Parts: sequence; structure tokens; C-alpha cells
Amino acid sequence: MQDFIVDLFARLAAIGADGDGGFTRPSYGPGEHAAHDLMAATARGLGLEVATDAAGNTYMTLPGRDRAAPRTVLGSHLDTVPRGGNYDGAAGVVAGLAMAAHLRDRGAVPAADLTVMGIRAEESVWFPASYIGSRAALGRLAPAELEIRRSDTGRTLADHMAEAGCDPAALAAGQRYLDPASVAAYVEIHIEQGPVLAAEGLPVGVVTAIRGGLRHHRAAILGEWAHSGATPRALRRDAVFAFADLLAELEAAWDRMEGAGRDLVLTLGKASTDPAAHAFSKVPGRLDFCLDARSTEDAALDAMGAEIEAVARSVAAARGVGIDLGPRSRSKPATMDPALVAALAAAAGRLQIPHRTLPSGAGHDAAAFAQAGVPSAMVFVRNDHGSHNPAEAMDPADLAAAARVALAALVPGSA
Amino acid sequence: MQDFIVDLFARLAAIGADGDGGFTRPSYGPGEHAAHDLMAATARGLGLEVATDAAGNTYMTLPGRDRAAPRTVLGSHLDTVPRGGNYDGAAGVVAGLAMAAHLRDRGAVPAADLTVMGIRAEESVWFPASYIGSRAALGRLAPAELEIRRSDTGRTLADHMAEAGCDPAALAAGQRYLDPASVAAYVEIHIEQGPVLAAEGLPVGVVTAIRGGLRHHRAAILGEWAHSGATPRALRRDAVFAFADLLAELEAAWDRMEGAGRDLVLTLGKASTDPAAHAFSKVPGRLDFCLDARSTEDAALDAMGAEIEAVARSVAAARGVGIDLGPRSRSKPATMDPALVAALAAAAGRLQIPHRTLPSGAGHDAAAFAQAGVPSAMVFVRNDHGSHNPAEAMDPADLAAAARVALAALVPGSA
Repeated sequence: MQDFIVDLFARLAAIGADGDGGFTRPSYGPGEHAAHDLMAATARGLGLEVATDAAGNTYMTLPGRDRAAPRTVLGSHLDTVPRGGNYDGAAGVVAGLAMAAHLRDRGAVPAADLTVMGIRAEESVWFPASYIGSRAALGRLAPAELEIRRSDTGRTLADHMAEAGCDPAALAAGQRYLDPASVAAYVEIHIEQGPVLAAEGLPVGVVTAIRGGLRHHRAAILGEWAHSGATPRALRRDAVFAFADLLAELEAAWDRMEGAGRDLVLTLGKASTDPAAHAFSKVPGRLDFCLDARSTEDAALDAMGAEIEAVARSVAAARGVGIDLGPRSRSKPATMDPALVAALAAAAGRLQIPHRTLPSGAGHDAAAFAQAGVPSAMVFVRNDHGSHNPAEAMDPADLAAAARVALAALVPGSA
Repeated sequence: MQDFIVDLFARLAAIGADGDGGFTRPSYGPGEHAAHDLMAATARGLGLEVATDAAGNTYMTLPGRDRAAPRTVLGSHLDTVPRGGNYDGAAGVVAGLAMAAHLRDRGAVPAADLTVMGIRAEESVWFPASYIGSRAALGRLAPAELEIRRSDTGRTLADHMAEAGCDPAALAAGQRYLDPASVAAYVEIHIEQGPVLAAEGLPVGVVTAIRGGLRHHRAAILGEWAHSGATPRALRRDAVFAFADLLAELEAAWDRMEGAGRDLVLTLGKASTDPAAHAFSKVPGRLDFCLDARSTEDAALDAMGAEIEAVARSVAAARGVGIDLGPRSRSKPATMDPALVAALAAAAGRLQIPHRTLPSGAGHDAAAFAQAGVPSAMVFVRNDHGSHNPAEAMDPADLAAAARVALAALVPGSA
């Protein structure tokens, strides 16, 4: 399968290339559309059945022995972030087609239909909503969401869908392409966006859960601007020292939760004194920050949310500052299907491919399928340098290994 | 003296007004020049002798009985920061002229010449050097400093001086207007830039020392950018959590120094994750910050400097980040003359004006005079809302009280 993978990625690399190794294929933009066309053409070349739905998702099906039986879907997305890499998303579709090609070459017919699904609009940098394409396929996109606007153009999702030849009116009317009951399993192969597999020298990982999040996008500490030399310590209301206290107490809470065996990561990715007012010789009067807590356990997010509020209150009182956490948003963790996880791990074991199980910290379309009641799982592929950047470094041999694991689990005897 | 003060500030308010309550009179710009012209014209109206030096400082002298005796200088600056207030700097010149008018009105002749000095270019926001006007008067401006460039125009100090009718060539040749031996005392009346006097309900303060500083203008913590959900805690090199550790350890060092009775204030006025790279969903890989330590004790700055380096090393090792403190700059504290300080405090006591002694956290021309060997002192005037902003709030009655204190100390029997 490795030759197929290398060849298809080489053809994909001509689409949306930024000229410096990066790729930009916006959701419902020309690059995403061309990637779907490339995958569909490749699928037709393999003799697969090709269909699209009202949201522009592409379904490439290898027919099974029982065409009425619930199908297996091998899905992933074909859009990218701005200046992203060639692998985030597309790897799962390329692997799916490689699996179908492998089965065709051997004349193997699966028990039920095997559908490779190219999904639209997964990267939420473009539209402020998660899993647009997969939720639309499953009938779980709210009509109001068709009016959200793309971050670069300011035009609505419905407008961009129509421009891409889709049918937003059908979606608004509640049309869905996939009845969850008609899908026996959803499996998504995706590059790992973190460093775990690379650090441990493992080509593949089986995902146990997709972390949910608790987020404060616009939090601020409000102190008082004052002269750095002329203001005595006792009269200061220093936003930066208050921020340090906040972090120390949040980290202590993180320690306690880890000590209690809870899954949690905590990140304050942006922090800045007010650039319009700060100066070398001023006690800082304002610091803006954001906060992102993620866990596979909904209860852990609830507990951390309570800690965040308590810590903000105690630091504000101790430092004489205001702490405005701003609006909070929440997403639910999604648990992968235990039987599918076990089957994938067992297949990797049989194939003697080094692997481990791990949670996914980032969101994926598999969460939308799991939340719709479809037994879902993911296979992560070792990847260096993280994702969402031109330096994504996936070895095609590792993607082929992931495809073999999925084939062995889903179509026994075929890998 | 209060009526004189109110009237002269009203006329000064016409110069460099920004239209929103703020004032911008750049060093060697038209607003500063016009302020010097206003003070000189006022002085001539009072019958004072008016002179200027090669750096454009204005000397307004009430002759004393012994014209050969070392004179007393009442100085302050007439430039402002961008969008500053009407009082920072000018208050000392207005008070000096009010004192001279008060003496003239009473026919009082001081023992030696009393010179009100309008000083140029004290606000270092314009040129990257301290006390340009006063050091030039004292022959302590290095010729190379004439080539530094103004922050807004990019043109040199020499160029701006020439445009203002000054003689930079004479300064480059080493000409000085004031022999330190010819100055018996330098007294500067200035609004307090901190909140101490306002917080304690005291109209005036007598400054004991001017804090020196230890500064890191361009320090940075270098971690590693990573996915906020997908990167396990153990593999993170988080610049923001490292910054919190750095602050906690610096504050502990500050506590230790205060506990040992040392004068110190510590400020990190600017701190920001890299705006070009940071994101809500990224472990922060870089945070830039600056650091400003000030003390009246040179040894305390040396000790804090050693603490800063040790703390940076230990936090870098513990968090797996790099900490680059960047270049360090140092300025020496200046001690005010103990006899002058005692005389000013005693005068305030005799006049029953509530007062205290306190250090000056900000730099002032008095530091340049003290470093040149001139016995120097300062009287601070209560001021709300800090300085360097349009909201400076000084009561003219408090400035008149400061002028009475200075008169009583410098010209006994005159206040």
C-alpha cells in the first residue's frame, strides 16, 4: 500500500500549495474542492462507487457481499488550516483508498459495504463550529449554523456551500445522507498531532477517547497602571504578579487531579499585558489571557471548572485585582467504542506492529460519529513536529502500517 | 504664591495641548521651546536676569548680595512625554518663579544668586539617554551622545538642538555653563509620580535618594510550541508556566531582600506570548518580557542582579526551557544631600506643613547634579493618578506649600 500512498500524496501536493512547503485548503474553498475531486477520480479509477451528499462530502464505496448490511466508514477530512501540512486530514482518506485498492487487487469482497468518506470542513479555524461536514452527513447540523461566517471572507457557510455546488437548503430542511443505524463502524486514521508516538518510537496508536474541552477565550486580569519606580509594593495592584499566582494555583489543582488519576491537560496559550498601555516603567494594569482545559472525562472538566473559578476569586482577593474569566465554552469528551479499540489493538498485535493506546487531545470527526451513536475508533499515525504546520513529518510506511491494522481489524484475513 | 502658580499654569496650558487634556512637548521640539520662551518672558517681567546655554537651558536669576558666591539653583524640566500632563517637570520651574516673585515683592535679597533653571530634554522617551539638558549644563554629556536619535523623527540630538537654536558644536567641544563648584545647592520641586503622599494625606515630601535601576529590556523564555490537547504534560516545555515560576522565585527573592531591610521594587511591565505564533490551542513556545528593579542602594541592585541570574538558571533547568535575559543596563542610585534634606524637613516642620521623607523611584535631573558633586535635594508635591498622563492631579495649594518649604530652607526668614 505504501507505493499507492506515496503516489496519491504526490498528486495531492499540487493542490493548495503555498509554495513554501505549506498547504492552504479552506473549508468549502477551491483547494478542498479539488482534493475531493482528486480522491473521487482516484476512487473511480479503482472501480469504487462514488457519491456526494448535500454537504459536499464524498463517499467512495467498495461494495460488500450484503449490500443491505450496515456499512463500515473509513473517514477523514480534506480541508487544512492556513499554511498547514499535506497530511492532517488527508492521510485518513488516502489510507482508506489504499485499503480499498489493496482489497480490489486481491479480489477480496468485504462482508458489508466499505465506504471511504472524504469529509468537508473539519478545521474550525474557518467556520466557528466543529465537525461541520460529518454532522451535516449525520443530520446533526442545526439550520442556524448555516448562517455562521467564514473567518477570512465573512460570507456565510450556506453561501460557501452553494458556491461549492452543495445544497444548503436540503440541509436546512433536515436531509441527512447517513442514518447512524446504517453505519456499523466509523474508523478514522489520522496523524498524531502530539509527540507521544514519536517519543516512544511507535508507528501507530489506537485512540481510546477524544478529549472534551473547557475554554475561556477572553479572560483578563485588571490591576492598576502605576509608575514602576515610584509606587511602593504595598500600593501595587500588579496584573502580572497576579497572573503568576493564578498559574501556580491552577498548576496545584492540576497536580491534585493527576494525583487522583484524572486525565487532564491545561494550557494558557496566549497571555499579554495590554500593548496599547504597557511600558517598561509601568506596573502592569492589565493582562489578557486564555485558558484551555481538556480531558477524556466530563467530570474532570466540571471539577477543573470549579477549581478555576475558586482560584480566580482567591487570587483576585489576595492581589487586589479583578479577574474576569469571560465567557466559558464546553465540549463533551467522546469515548471510542471499546470493542473496536480492542479489535484494532489486537490486530496491531497480530501484525507485530508496535503500538499503544492513547487519548486524542484534539477534536476529530470521530467525535461527531460517536456522539451520533455510531461505534467509532481512530488509529493514530506517528508524526513529528506536530500538525497544522508545513513541517508535519509522517512516514508513508507508518501510514501503510495503520492501514494494515485497520484492514486486519475490519476485514479479517485481508491485511 | 498660589495665584501666580495658577496663572502661569493657565498660560502654559496653551502650549503643546493635545486637545483632550494631555500635553506633548517633545525634547528640543516646538512645545518645549515655547515653554522655555514663556518662562523667560515671565522672568523678564519679574526683573530677573535671563540667560541660556549652548544646550538651550534657561537660567532666570534673582541677584544675591554676594554675586560671586556659589549660587542656589531651583531647577526642573519643561519637556513632557507624549500625551503627558501639564505638571510633570514644569511644576518645579513655575514654583521657582513664584518663589522669585515672592522675594521681589518683599524686596528680599538672598545672600547669593538664586537661579531658576528651565532644563531641556529630561524625558528619556524622546532620546535614549538620561538627563540630557542638566548633564550638558554640567559638562557631563559625552560628544557621542549628540548623535543619538529621537524616537519619533529618527534625527540626531545635535540636529534637533541646532533646529532649536542651540550650539551642539560648543557642547561637543566640552563647553559647560555650570561649574559644579559654583553651585551651592540644587533643589528640584516635582510632582510625586507615585501615590505615597496622596495615600497618606501629606501635601509635600522630602526626597532622600533617587533610586537607581537594573534593567532587562528584552528578555525571553524559549519553550516549544505544541498542540494544547495532544501534548502530554511530561513532554511540554511551556513558556507561560515557566514565566509563573520565574515570577514566584523573583518575588521570594524580593521578600528576602525586604526582610533584610533593603529598599527594592521589582516590576515586569511587559509580558507577552509571541503574537505571531501564539494560539488558543497551542502550548506557548515563547514569552517575551522586561524586568525593572530599582533601589536607593547600589548593593541591593547588585544582589538582586545575582538573584535574577540564579532564578533564571534554576527555572530554565526545571522547566526545560531557555531563558535569555538579554542585555542588562544599570543606573546608579543618587543620594540627596543629608544637610539639605534635614533643612527642608525642618522648614516644613516650622511651617506646620504635614510631610514625610521618601525615596524617588523615578529618575530626575537632581540625580545628574548629585552625581556631579553638587549638594542636591528634591521636594515632592502630592499628586493623584501618577504622572506621564493627562490625569495628573496636583493642587496648586500643595505646590505653593512646597515653594514655601524650599524658600524657608534656602532663604531663611523669607517664607
